[in-house]
Amino acid sequence: MTRRGYSPVPFAEVRLTSPFWRERLEVVLKRTIPSQHAKLAEVGILESLKLPKPVPPLRMPRNNHGFTVQVFWDSDVGKWIEAAAYALAHRRDPDIEAKIDAIVEDFAAAQSPDGYLNCWYNGREPDKRWTNLRDNHELYNAGHLLEGAIAYFRITGRRRFLDIMERYVDHIAATFGTGPGQKRGYPGHQEIELALFKLYRLTGDRRRLDLARYFIDERGREPPHYFTREAIARGDDPAKFSHGTYEYNQSHLPVREQAKVVGHAVRAMYMLCAMADLAADLGDEGLRRACETLWRDVTAAQMYVTAGLGPKETNEGFTEPFDLPNETAYAETCASVALIFWAQRMLHLDLDGDYAEVMERALFNGALSGLSREGTHYFYSNPLESRGQHKRWAWHICPCCTMNVARLVASVGGYFLSIGADGVAFHLYGGIEANVAIAGTKVALRETSDYPWSGDIRIEVDPEAAAAFDLKLRVPGWTKGAKATVNGEPIPLAGNSGYATIHRRWSKGDVVTLTLPLPAERLYAHPNVRMDVGRVALRRGPLIYCVEEADNPGQPVQTLELPRAAPIEAKQRADLFGGVVTLEAPAKRLVPGDAEGALYSTTPPAAKDETLTALPYYLWANRGRGSMQVWIAEGGG
Amino acid sequence: MTRRGYSPVPFAEVRLTSPFWRERLEVVLKRTIPSQHAKLAEVGILESLKLPKPVPPLRMPRNNHGFTVQVFWDSDVGKWIEAAAYALAHRRDPDIEAKIDAIVEDFAAAQSPDGYLNCWYNGREPDKRWTNLRDNHELYNAGHLLEGAIAYFRITGRRRFLDIMERYVDHIAATFGTGPGQKRGYPGHQEIELALFKLYRLTGDRRRLDLARYFIDERGREPPHYFTREAIARGDDPAKFSHGTYEYNQSHLPVREQAKVVGHAVRAMYMLCAMADLAADLGDEGLRRACETLWRDVTAAQMYVTAGLGPKETNEGFTEPFDLPNETAYAETCASVALIFWAQRMLHLDLDGDYAEVMERALFNGALSGLSREGTHYFYSNPLESRGQHKRWAWHICPCCTMNVARLVASVGGYFLSIGADGVAFHLYGGIEANVAIAGTKVALRETSDYPWSGDIRIEVDPEAAAAFDLKLRVPGWTKGAKATVNGEPIPLAGNSGYATIHRRWSKGDVVTLTLPLPAERLYAHPNVRMDVGRVALRRGPLIYCVEEADNPGQPVQTLELPRAAPIEAKQRADLFGGVVTLEAPAKRLVPGDAEGALYSTTPPAAKDETLTALPYYLWANRGRGSMQVWIAEGGG
Repeated sequence: MTRRGYSPVPFAEVRLTSPFWRERLEVVLKRTIPSQHAKLAEVGILESLKLPKPVPPLRMPRNNHGFTVQVFWDSDVGKWIEAAAYALAHRRDPDIEAKIDAIVEDFAAAQSPDGYLNCWYNGREPDKRWTNLRDNHELYNAGHLLEGAIAYFRITGRRRFLDIMERYVDHIAATFGTGPGQKRGYPGHQEIELALFKLYRLTGDRRRLDLARYFIDERGREPPHYFTREAIARGDDPAKFSHGTYEYNQSHLPVREQAKVVGHAVRAMYMLCAMADLAADLGDEGLRRACETLWRDVTAAQMYVTAGLGPKETNEGFTEPFDLPNETAYAETCASVALIFWAQRMLHLDLDGDYAEVMERALFNGALSGLSREGTHYFYSNPLESRGQHKRWAWHICPCCTMNVARLVASVGGYFLSIGADGVAFHLYGGIEANVAIAGTKVALRETSDYPWSGDIRIEVDPEAAAAFDLKLRVPGWTKGAKATVNGEPIPLAGNSGYATIHRRWSKGDVVTLTLPLPAERLYAHPNVRMDVGRVALRRGPLIYCVEEADNPGQPVQTLELPRAAPIEAKQRADLFGGVVTLEAPAKRLVPGDAEGALYSTTPPAAKDETLTALPYYLWANRGRGSMQVWIAEGGG
Repeated sequence: MTRRGYSPVPFAEVRLTSPFWRERLEVVLKRTIPSQHAKLAEVGILESLKLPKPVPPLRMPRNNHGFTVQVFWDSDVGKWIEAAAYALAHRRDPDIEAKIDAIVEDFAAAQSPDGYLNCWYNGREPDKRWTNLRDNHELYNAGHLLEGAIAYFRITGRRRFLDIMERYVDHIAATFGTGPGQKRGYPGHQEIELALFKLYRLTGDRRRLDLARYFIDERGREPPHYFTREAIARGDDPAKFSHGTYEYNQSHLPVREQAKVVGHAVRAMYMLCAMADLAADLGDEGLRRACETLWRDVTAAQMYVTAGLGPKETNEGFTEPFDLPNETAYAETCASVALIFWAQRMLHLDLDGDYAEVMERALFNGALSGLSREGTHYFYSNPLESRGQHKRWAWHICPCCTMNVARLVASVGGYFLSIGADGVAFHLYGGIEANVAIAGTKVALRETSDYPWSGDIRIEVDPEAAAAFDLKLRVPGWTKGAKATVNGEPIPLAGNSGYATIHRRWSKGDVVTLTLPLPAERLYAHPNVRMDVGRVALRRGPLIYCVEEADNPGQPVQTLELPRAAPIEAKQRADLFGGVVTLEAPAKRLVPGDAEGALYSTTPPAAKDETLTALPYYLWANRGRGSMQVWIAEGGG
């Protein structure tokens, strides 16, 4: 069943009252956004925008993929502006705005007369623009700058940056395409496609949509392959592509023919966002089918239980089905953030709870784990196991994830609600207020809960005048026995695909309650995930849990064994991180079974009674170094 | 209890009749040794010896450690000559001998007037000799050439190569030392020390011993550290050592102060061989204690169950206690070969069955797995798990392991027996004949068995005249209920430290039988080996087993689960590899517990009955690609 026609309520129209998200949001507003500006200055990124002075010498070494990270510094600035703009929507801040305006002036000065704008090329290699789309991120940078410009305009109404970027987009549109004299190129790192779609949505200018569609349609066409032609044209051997396959950037096949998610995870996710945008807007069934096929491929065999994506460091991406190593998981924060973007778009192609479930799982786990409790340290990789070698970073040579998680948290309200022609749908809970218009009627909505800690949800529906419409409430797959009332009267929870629909004539003061039991549950991986055989993960509601040495001291947490029959108890812990729910279970601590503690023995390990305490995964590594594990060994009996 | 005074019976005096080892030996003689010469020619290594022609351009790329592999090509030739010489001891071969003699002439022509001999430096950078001991393997090469020269002289009596090498050793002795004008250097890759000890044993020339002792004693002394001084002297930044720590080559501390085995595994093992040699010969208690401390460190926390060493690829070596990942195990064949060398030396410092046990385990598992069934393919790394990505190599850019396993197999008879002042000790079984002299009496020994497949061992003891001496029989730790008879009469098996001593007056025709039950057993790792928690390995006698997809088809073997109580049955399998013993057990095949086969589910996997068949580990990857696992998930009940 297709249930189209829903579109998200933008975050700026959703006021977060959620205790959970207010805390994260305040940290991002007060600490993350300002400290990121300071870091951008400290490492030379802001200085690199100041042309025509020579670009300063690289202050950080090349990363281990052989990139000069400077080629994508523009994108970091664009993403920071976007995150900061979202922060301004919550609370205006003249200091931050002045900082953004100063950056915008640098971009204005750096822009070429013909509209081209890239601080690396304009400052260092102006004659080499557009010669290496495969590696050098020009279009990717343009996309992030465009997203920043759109966000800043939407929040402040100031259009100088947007004007700059529209000129640049005009230049890009003139440069790339199928017309005479145009380059038939497309981005090595997808991003601009979804930014162009946002610009189209903002301005209604259909040329922006056409350009996005061109980039998507042209991708992977051959013969000859554009990146091959381009390499030959600049005198490089195309065979010497460091990643060895165009699967790396998903240009190995035209996008509609792709049936397996491959290569660099963030590139793949951004591309899929654009494909879903275009599928929805154009009714393009080919793109829609490709999205659905690739969704199944990712979620059936290539996604960590935390909704982390991409096990491998060398391609920052996918390998093969069921290959999900825990300790060496790459699972880049950006990839989970991008998965949220994609899942939200799929949800608006088809209002199916499966999409919402993955969106929520990535949000509360794989993405949120990228940001430290105090808001100034990060994880780029999000492993599911540690022996204590992992530590959050104050910055990263490639700081993409830092701003990605910031822009996500600053705009998280935008993932809660959608509006359709005849109703409103709740995807997430946790406390929001919004005024929406449903079928011409203004409706004030107020959802109150302590979600994800509690599943007791109260929704006040206040139409300005009584009106009939659907209230669609997501009933997550992980809950059982959900109950609802309207004005105190129990109602049956009817609906399908993960959404219960309450259709009635709503009046001022109507109150709906939704009770979602949050069982503490064991999760098992498909047995083909060889790393997780004999292991169990713990989940409560949308949260995946882990055992961390700070809560289970003495020996590495990998020596804990959770018997299959052990009861798991949720505990309110006011003493931890301002109040969280931990999971506790009677468990075993494995110790050597022989007296000598030999490395290998015919005597099985002995099992001592011990209480296991599990913490929400997103909070790990906030109390110094120590061992951590998501997939716990399961004991018999 | 110290039981010194035993020394090995050289392999050339031990005739192998063992069905197990004859098969391996014939393969090495007929296929491995000749094919290795062909490979040395094919990849340009033999050509590289022909000076003063310019050294040919590198035909193979730099390896992933940034080495120019050419700098250690001499060592590959030396090791091949050693292996080939050992082969000649079994069966002379004019063709092979002509090939060796031709190579020797190349070395003769390449040697400098002052005795220096290194084909890389003499052919390419003659003015740079001895400027980079840290990285460039000159002394390592010299060691392997010297071992080759000694072996060839011992077998054939031809001393041209030995003379060349003695001249080179004289040059080295003049160059390095604590005297005025001498360099206080030592090898970046240890090897020459044990070769010098062999030369000392061959010629009795004590200067060779002194030089070996100098290299061992000087190692790791500071300030300033020799490799630091040397780097500065050649204009390099010492901080830019690619491995970042002198632990890599065990020069971070004087050897007597080393209490943890660190760094590159083969370097560590070769150093420990020399330390044990010197400890035995000089009665050096400091070296002996260091050896014992490091032995405990390796075997208590840093050794795979296969006796593989060194989990990590980047340093080809050790990481930290209990860090023994299976699929990514480096466990270089050379490291297990070198562990055998070291264990044998420790055994002759102290006749303790623990040393023999590790020696045997490395021999039958971690080392032997490096050679394919047909004798011309190799493993450099010996992982304990595969999803099918591993494949034996026809050659390797750094072919060290290929010749190491060849020289081991060709000389395996040398690990069976030791002679002391008043007795003979058997360490291994499997079928040998030897004539030894014990306290002045010539004794013919004949051991007959189908070991390791069977533990029924018969030993004929034929002194030329009746004589009293000890017959020491190793009773491995893995057997229980061993029994013995002398001339049909049961005798008690008394003794300690893993050796039963039969003291009697032996006469011609005496027959001893030893029955070693070979139980099929489960092994458990110390629970701090996080990868092996909840897992079990199978062992029968000295053989570690694995499950391979070829014997357990349908799904990856990682989906097999072996219940703790399942009986394990040994099966004679004449159809496999010319006759082996496999282990079979009623086991479970895990399949998704939910109908959809979801990636994650609250339903545990279902377990279907299936017979598990395990193969000796050393035989894996001889039937094409497929999954493999040593540590099998253990089920309850």
